[in-house]
Amino acid sequence: MSQYKAKLIVIGDELLTGKIKDANTIEVARWLESQGFGLGQVILSGDSPDELFEVIKDALETADLVMTTGGLGPTPDDVTKAVLAKVFKGELCESQVAREMAIKNYERIGKEWSPEKNSYHLIPSTMNPIENPQGLAPGLSRISDKKLFMAAPGVPRELKAMMDSPFIELLNQVFSDRENNHQVLSLRTYGVPEEKIFFELMPQLWNELSKEGKVSSLPQVLGVDIHLSFSGTNNDLEEKKERWQQLLNNSPLGPHIWAYEAIAIENYIVREATRKSLTLSLAESCTGGLVAHRLTNVPGSAAVFMGSIVAYANEVKTNILGVQQETLRNFGAVSVETAREMAIGAQKVCQTNLAVSLSGIAGPGGGTPDKPVGTVCIGESNSTGEASARLYHFRGDREYLKLRFSEMALHRLRKGILKY
Amino acid sequence: MSQYKAKLIVIGDELLTGKIKDANTIEVARWLESQGFGLGQVILSGDSPDELFEVIKDALETADLVMTTGGLGPTPDDVTKAVLAKVFKGELCESQVAREMAIKNYERIGKEWSPEKNSYHLIPSTMNPIENPQGLAPGLSRISDKKLFMAAPGVPRELKAMMDSPFIELLNQVFSDRENNHQVLSLRTYGVPEEKIFFELMPQLWNELSKEGKVSSLPQVLGVDIHLSFSGTNNDLEEKKERWQQLLNNSPLGPHIWAYEAIAIENYIVREATRKSLTLSLAESCTGGLVAHRLTNVPGSAAVFMGSIVAYANEVKTNILGVQQETLRNFGAVSVETAREMAIGAQKVCQTNLAVSLSGIAGPGGGTPDKPVGTVCIGESNSTGEASARLYHFRGDREYLKLRFSEMALHRLRKGILKY
Repeated sequence: MSQYKAKLIVIGDELLTGKIKDANTIEVARWLESQGFGLGQVILSGDSPDELFEVIKDALETADLVMTTGGLGPTPDDVTKAVLAKVFKGELCESQVAREMAIKNYERIGKEWSPEKNSYHLIPSTMNPIENPQGLAPGLSRISDKKLFMAAPGVPRELKAMMDSPFIELLNQVFSDRENNHQVLSLRTYGVPEEKIFFELMPQLWNELSKEGKVSSLPQVLGVDIHLSFSGTNNDLEEKKERWQQLLNNSPLGPHIWAYEAIAIENYIVREATRKSLTLSLAESCTGGLVAHRLTNVPGSAAVFMGSIVAYANEVKTNILGVQQETLRNFGAVSVETAREMAIGAQKVCQTNLAVSLSGIAGPGGGTPDKPVGTVCIGESNSTGEASARLYHFRGDREYLKLRFSEMALHRLRKGILKY
Repeated sequence: MSQYKAKLIVIGDELLTGKIKDANTIEVARWLESQGFGLGQVILSGDSPDELFEVIKDALETADLVMTTGGLGPTPDDVTKAVLAKVFKGELCESQVAREMAIKNYERIGKEWSPEKNSYHLIPSTMNPIENPQGLAPGLSRISDKKLFMAAPGVPRELKAMMDSPFIELLNQVFSDRENNHQVLSLRTYGVPEEKIFFELMPQLWNELSKEGKVSSLPQVLGVDIHLSFSGTNNDLEEKKERWQQLLNNSPLGPHIWAYEAIAIENYIVREATRKSLTLSLAESCTGGLVAHRLTNVPGSAAVFMGSIVAYANEVKTNILGVQQETLRNFGAVSVETAREMAIGAQKVCQTNLAVSLSGIAGPGGGTPDKPVGTVCIGESNSTGEASARLYHFRGDREYLKLRFSEMALHRLRKGILKY
């Protein structure tokens, strides 16, 4: 799709020994796509200078743009600068510009930089330093043969700040002729597996979509996303969106599509509740606050989301949510009866239009033959006086079950909003 | 450290366009380390058959064990099997064993498999199918020249189930002589930056630790982890742990080390609260349930964690937590006064030994010159009648601030537990 090819090298032994998750690749991938580059490959490499040298050399041979993240810090396992000096046939030398950047970066956090603290003033003689607006260690760049190399720190917020500005200047300098006409039409479905979509409900869909671009299908926590990538303008995207929406709305897949755009369910909920001036609340047991956490990740959620009672203990269910002792005794904490009363309680105590509740068993303990691990009851209560609850079964370990439960609750909330 | 070298290839265009996060690498990396392999590199590759072919061929040349994840599903963008047929010079043929696995996998979810659904019965003639205990598509393996190749689905829980059993059998078959003597001593510190540790407080620490193994330093959300990797027995690890604990306890770094093991703060809290029979509760505003979510990720947390009031709206703060209208009016929602009353309210209403509260500004909106985005007040109330609150400032975007706020609150909880 893109005329320019990028490779990303994420540096750090800690990634290869599983000590941390790679949080940078997804951010860089999105940024590169938005900048009109095709990311061909990502390599997670350790701190060994010899291996890193080979990886960087290889990448420079096949890509127009090579980025590295990590290894620019002050400790002895930060080897990127030394390796880059070798790759670009230079030596680590003092750079007046890098020195000034270090001094300025330290001033920003109210401290004084000195060469005893670290060697941020030393960079390969064949490279240029790049501003690091959110951190201390400068980045590095090198332009040659219409190719661009950029090295960023591994700290996600520092990398992000560099992508927001100094990196874009470099892209504009080297790839000023790049086109950025990459478009993606996304269909978000819910409640039907990949196989059923493409082999039962819509056996021609993949072929039909393929006539207009590259199709991909991506199973999510609950549901499947279908993406159509193509070259075109924003108007082309709008045209395709409208046309496919009309085509699919009345198809067997129609009832399962909840969005024709790549929007997260929590953002969808906040947007729609805001539009309809609805207020929301939750009562969570087994998800332990995850549903509220997801909703409050959305900027502006404070306008619609009032609160959640994370009622892990039964006493909290009775004391705050007003669940009847008798309900707990007769049906148990994980029951549609309890979930229903939890939802009513949350709606009342948080004074909202809509409340959703969850009570379930995320495991690993707590399952019974009747109510195995993965059982969850989701309740709903709204200001029109309706209150109900349903029981579901899912599979997975504790964290995955919490995620699936939360996803189901968010879909219940989404449907609840549709009624208004 | 390990005599056998592994490479991992994570397959899927969706990773390179930033549509999903790679959740598998960290799991595979940890598993390989526990199995005595050194993971030399991870490559994220797209679905293009030609590129994938090259990546797999290259990996087989330099590693003893090569694993792939992804691309075994039923849709046309699942190309791994076709590529593997070419790599291992075979053809896609019907396998009776694969057919039976598919039938059994579908029976497990109460459905019937047929060749019309997908081609799970077709595998490269030069490979063997592997059981997929949690999914539908079988995995694939190939043994040759004392090298092992294994292909797993990309769905994290399916991959995990395969690593739990069928993959280990294959490792035992091919690498029966492997040693597994990899040990890591981890020091978790808090409240002091990397630079200050190694250049001010303990300028000799890196060198001293290096005498006993490979040292690495890893900045975390709040604090720095120091890891010492070495070959040895569990007894060696215990010996080093005790010795370094004695050495460091009275050092300038001592007060900043909160664990001599790689334990998550939430697991530490649940373990210590359980040991001391303490109950915990929370009142969260700006973190929106994240602290409760993190605590309830720990299996067994129900024994100590009673609940959290996610009081996003002021009405929830007053109605449930009993924060005085006057306090809100005089000092604002984000104030030590409000945080203190929130903690007292949570402790009372959830009837716990200890409660921690948060009220702050995660942004992007809501900041003022007096209380900019990143301000958070954390309160604490305990059953000995103490109640207090402190104000902090952090930097970052909304999600990162929520994470830093939650980390700070967990450290307050950890310290609160230490008082008992």
